[in-house]
Amino acid sequence: MRFVRFTADGSVAWGVQVDDQVHDLRAHATGVPSYSDVAYPGYRNRVRDAVDRGSLPVHEVGEVKLLAPVPKPGKMICVGLNYHDHAEEQDEDVPEKPMLFAKASSSVTNPEDPIVHPNDVEQVDYEVELGVVVGRTARNVDEADAADYVAGYTVVNDVSARDAQFEDEQFFRGKSYDTFAPMGPALVTGDELDPNDLAVECTVNGDVKQSSTTAEFIFDVGELVEYLSHRMTLHPGDVISTGTPGGVGIFRDPPELLDAGDSVTVSVEGVGDLTNPVVADD
Amino acid sequence: MRFVRFTADGSVAWGVQVDDQVHDLRAHATGVPSYSDVAYPGYRNRVRDAVDRGSLPVHEVGEVKLLAPVPKPGKMICVGLNYHDHAEEQDEDVPEKPMLFAKASSSVTNPEDPIVHPNDVEQVDYEVELGVVVGRTARNVDEADAADYVAGYTVVNDVSARDAQFEDEQFFRGKSYDTFAPMGPALVTGDELDPNDLAVECTVNGDVKQSSTTAEFIFDVGELVEYLSHRMTLHPGDVISTGTPGGVGIFRDPPELLDAGDSVTVSVEGVGDLTNPVVADD
Repeated sequence: MRFVRFTADGSVAWGVQVDDQVHDLRAHATGVPSYSDVAYPGYRNRVRDAVDRGSLPVHEVGEVKLLAPVPKPGKMICVGLNYHDHAEEQDEDVPEKPMLFAKASSSVTNPEDPIVHPNDVEQVDYEVELGVVVGRTARNVDEADAADYVAGYTVVNDVSARDAQFEDEQFFRGKSYDTFAPMGPALVTGDELDPNDLAVECTVNGDVKQSSTTAEFIFDVGELVEYLSHRMTLHPGDVISTGTPGGVGIFRDPPELLDAGDSVTVSVEGVGDLTNPVVADD
Repeated sequence: MRFVRFTADGSVAWGVQVDDQVHDLRAHATGVPSYSDVAYPGYRNRVRDAVDRGSLPVHEVGEVKLLAPVPKPGKMICVGLNYHDHAEEQDEDVPEKPMLFAKASSSVTNPEDPIVHPNDVEQVDYEVELGVVVGRTARNVDEADAADYVAGYTVVNDVSARDAQFEDEQFFRGKSYDTFAPMGPALVTGDELDPNDLAVECTVNGDVKQSSTTAEFIFDVGELVEYLSHRMTLHPGDVISTGTPGGVGIFRDPPELLDAGDSVTVSVEGVGDLTNPVVADD
């Protein structure tokens, strides 16, 4: 199922999108879903029944504003170097274990909202990533059971100030400026897709910059959930951003970075397109 | 004022500690305080009146279990190399700007609760730190105004798996294992202390390992709030852990790291002692 968080009639709501229509869950008996609800097949079945019966109010998707499905992740864990082709473009060996870093939860922004280019950095870059939204508390989960702990999948643009990232050596600042985590346009549950076999793409002003597939993952979603959950408890509403493929701006020759006026679209097959304009800080 | 979060009568509560007594805020008209409340002088005045009138139920502090004042920070931002003596012990130059990294919010644990030594790492280390709890949404705040945005101060033990930290190069994993952020025993408001002139100490099994003062800060609390808030919005309930002085275990000769059976106490003058036993993972 395709869950969307959106604004309509002046308030924030959740809905289920079917084709171009959003079925508004404010009218559903179970109310606003938690990430645990979304992860629970029984909940999804009840919602599907309501949608099929046509018992929920409907909006045209073009008439609502879609929002980031997780506006404030409990934690946002990113994986570096998780595509074979991205490791190659940096002349890096394939890592033996996932390399982790964090983005600040305050960096999340909505589809269509601006990515603000900070004044104190120069090298703002894009990274298309598949985002995994945790749906059940996960501690010491085996790879084979990982899907049970996932609420669904979204698209993340892991926007990165390369100069800050490389100057600090620790990636946190360069990854955590406000608006540096566009997320959306939907939260798609695992019964609709195979997260380890999805086309991913990033375009800037319509030109393709990254084009790969999650089949290139060095560590797939199950392996990441297993690895992480053996080291830190994952809670509903945590987000794992699974790394980006080759083609990022900083490693192009010459580098191609983001400037005010650019429009960036990151896409994951089966989840959708997430587009954000870049604007100057003022 | 000295706010404490605690368990009594089977539920979690907030109170104000005066000497050895905790005045229970569950009975106060304003109820459970938010971090914004604590940062607001008008709220503190009302609570102080209630305490002075003796109108709140009282517990002996020894009869309640004190809890981490921020059990799940919105984000937990740590500052590396922020004491002159810690930079010296690593032969590092004094940094020109704060070096930032993150701990997972899920790593917070309570006073007296165990630090669990993970099985997959060897080098578990202590770091006494002054924790700054954000009380008002802060964006582009000047150093001179920083105190207005702080709810109060606490003690953080920035427990660190050095082998993970150095192997990954990114510090996040080594800093983020469950239980790696003991926090407490209180949230002390800024009207009671000068955060940039406090003795800090760490003892392991009663032996002093770190002993310094926040007067050794390279970047003081005001500078950190200014620097951070110009890069990412700080929200109530975010925690800034301000770095640790010299004397950490990994840089001792020979290294002195934490093992199951050890007891670690980190202390900040005016805030108190935070003690945790180290136990093996099983």
